[in-house]
Amino acid sequence: MYSYPESLELLVEQLRKLPSIGRKSAQRLALHIVEMNDEKINNLIQSLEDVKNKIHSCEICGNLTEDDICDVCKDENRDKSIICVVEDVTNLLTLERLETFRGRYHVLDGLISPSGNMMPDEIGVDKFIGRVKKENVKEIIFAISPTVEGETTMLFLKELMKDLDIKITRIASGIPVGGNLEYYDDITLSKAMKERINLLG
Amino acid sequence: MYSYPESLELLVEQLRKLPSIGRKSAQRLALHIVEMNDEKINNLIQSLEDVKNKIHSCEICGNLTEDDICDVCKDENRDKSIICVVEDVTNLLTLERLETFRGRYHVLDGLISPSGNMMPDEIGVDKFIGRVKKENVKEIIFAISPTVEGETTMLFLKELMKDLDIKITRIASGIPVGGNLEYYDDITLSKAMKERINLLG
Repeated sequence: MYSYPESLELLVEQLRKLPSIGRKSAQRLALHIVEMNDEKINNLIQSLEDVKNKIHSCEICGNLTEDDICDVCKDENRDKSIICVVEDVTNLLTLERLETFRGRYHVLDGLISPSGNMMPDEIGVDKFIGRVKKENVKEIIFAISPTVEGETTMLFLKELMKDLDIKITRIASGIPVGGNLEYYDDITLSKAMKERINLLG
Repeated sequence: MYSYPESLELLVEQLRKLPSIGRKSAQRLALHIVEMNDEKINNLIQSLEDVKNKIHSCEICGNLTEDDICDVCKDENRDKSIICVVEDVTNLLTLERLETFRGRYHVLDGLISPSGNMMPDEIGVDKFIGRVKKENVKEIIFAISPTVEGETTMLFLKELMKDLDIKITRIASGIPVGGNLEYYDDITLSKAMKERINLLG
């Protein structure tokens, strides 16, 4: 069977490794890239080089930055006594979009996996606990997905901090706004019932 | 509002220019790329460089190739007297996947647009007619989408070839296999009726 020229096939293979890009999408992207003029391809290549060379993790919180310290940690107007713990940078950016949280963040290197694929030392637990002890932190908010891995991670970190005299909270789990009760699973419903809010204050 | 580091934002912008990649997909891809190790990013960059430097159009048919002449045109087992005209390389590859057509191709640079955005000289009409006259062609098959632009292009090319003593055909239009009549438009149905096939030969 006739196939793509070798270099085009290799590009398709590279693109397929990206998240949610299947074979067909990769082919369409590769054919589009072939049709791009040199200047546009060069811009794309330059962007990849720049990201590779300039972007790294913030020394304090693990957010992405081109400097030693990220814009959030640099911002003197933000409350240093509250740290919001997230599982990755994507979730940090999602929360920042809300423009409601004015504390600082701590980005873990993923979540502890009870099945043993991710151990506590792999997600940067020591660095986090070290930071909490060093800084004058009053509250830790876990903004971590309520999955098995998320719950395990929260439980593990909570145990390590229980003697530190810090308020430890987690974002609420329950029925999403606009959601219909009948479509949600028993665990979500049970949690929503148990963590019900007193409407009279 | 807090935003991405500059180089990451630029990469998101570059990725957004690719087909069917929206802002959210571009962000997810960019964050994935940031997390990739240097070797993987380098492989991606190298693939882009290779495609940019090595891939160009076949001198005969316009297919993509790393050589002067593409693998289809080089293949001595293919019938040189039949040329299948397609609107782009994607459609050539789609037809090759079928492994039924054993002639050669001619890839146009798009289709004539009656609204004036694409004129006949922009889609390489002269090159095509020149080729047809030079080679000993017996049949031209239009495998072109039955859109307004496609019909215009076929009509235009047919007029230019009408005195050349060449059989000129087009792929059938009608109801797709597995399709239900009620879901197709009047023009498709009319065409399917008009171009009905005699089952008794």
